[in-house]
Amino acid sequence: MRVEIWSDIACPWCYVGKARFEKALQTFPHRDAVEVVHRSFELDPNRAKDDIQPVIPMLTKKYGMSKAQAQAGEENLGTQAAAEGLDYRTRDRDHGSTFDMHRLLHLAKERGRQDELIQNLYKANFAEERSVFGDDERLVELAVDAGLDEDEARKVLADPAAYADEVRADEREAAELGANGVPFFVLDRKYGVSGAQPAEVFAQALEQAWASHSPLKLIQADSQGDAEACGPDGCAVPHQH
Amino acid sequence: MRVEIWSDIACPWCYVGKARFEKALQTFPHRDAVEVVHRSFELDPNRAKDDIQPVIPMLTKKYGMSKAQAQAGEENLGTQAAAEGLDYRTRDRDHGSTFDMHRLLHLAKERGRQDELIQNLYKANFAEERSVFGDDERLVELAVDAGLDEDEARKVLADPAAYADEVRADEREAAELGANGVPFFVLDRKYGVSGAQPAEVFAQALEQAWASHSPLKLIQADSQGDAEACGPDGCAVPHQH
Repeated sequence: MRVEIWSDIACPWCYVGKARFEKALQTFPHRDAVEVVHRSFELDPNRAKDDIQPVIPMLTKKYGMSKAQAQAGEENLGTQAAAEGLDYRTRDRDHGSTFDMHRLLHLAKERGRQDELIQNLYKANFAEERSVFGDDERLVELAVDAGLDEDEARKVLADPAAYADEVRADEREAAELGANGVPFFVLDRKYGVSGAQPAEVFAQALEQAWASHSPLKLIQADSQGDAEACGPDGCAVPHQH
Repeated sequence: MRVEIWSDIACPWCYVGKARFEKALQTFPHRDAVEVVHRSFELDPNRAKDDIQPVIPMLTKKYGMSKAQAQAGEENLGTQAAAEGLDYRTRDRDHGSTFDMHRLLHLAKERGRQDELIQNLYKANFAEERSVFGDDERLVELAVDAGLDEDEARKVLADPAAYADEVRADEREAAELGANGVPFFVLDRKYGVSGAQPAEVFAQALEQAWASHSPLKLIQADSQGDAEACGPDGCAVPHQH
């Protein structure tokens, strides 16, 4: 079974939602048969790499919130994060482009280190003092800590085209699947969970997707005898088709 | 819609079956929405890299065929290949390990050149005079011709661990899906086609998979109001959960 999670590093509900999903996954009896894939989604795809600002002024400017509203939202997120055992800085967090982080996550996907890296990025962005934006060396550190090769990570960060198509493809796919916000969870391309729902909802989604996991329906010609195929005993040699 | 094709370069029915599938795909009205992924399957996974032999003696030794039977099989394959417009050498073809080719195909997958490379490999193996086995330089040529970077291809071939896990994972998955021979086609993980079936069977499978392509079923908490998610208008801040 495959669970795809569309999310953004700059998305607090993605950070919280991932923990809720994982709580459900930990007690799911078939968890060893579940493959988790992280997919890219930028909340702020047009933000320039060097356009970094503190979260509260960004929220007031971009979404027209009052400073008090924005701060209350952060406090609420802090409470929700704490309930999942996550650290969350409710003050002086930065906001910026996450494009390079998504590109790096695609490298990590190929190297089997995606979950390690996204966890490092979330933690760095939401829990730690030092900003994760506009600092390639910081990203390289987090990548190496996640098990990636330093030179390889550096090379990807230095080349803006590296994995750019993969990020865009994920984003197009999100739109096709009807996701206009994140986190967005897709189970076997059959069930969707939108938002940081409670762990019980994820548990239910896992159960439902598992129950409807059906064997392949084989399609073949009515007249077909031996399939024209090669296997451990050699290649079939039907004389008539 | 995603079509996964498990196949082996040393599998003549895979070569023929791919052409039959493509004939069906060409006339499928939604062909632009079909993503094709090639997956690894070795018919002879235990063969050493340096163990290369002509096909006919291999068939007689491995499967206990008479030389005449083996040659008749090759002639039949030549006829079937010709019917699909494919060249096929019925004599003096070699057999050997395809593990390195599968590793190279995983690199090509990441670079978006998988179909080009598998086509080159099939053609080189089945239609051309020079053996494709035990000759890394030949594989590099075919990779470059498929649009891969020469150094990158060479590096993968030189490192037996590169993409080895990916090859094994594909093979495990084939077993889990019930494939014990190739070619094996899987449409959206819902429909399967085993063997080089006639183009009409592939056309029917494409139609059936397309028709059953259903939108995601969303799962959410009964009590859930606003999803705790971030979108283009900011992050939802529900006060009550």
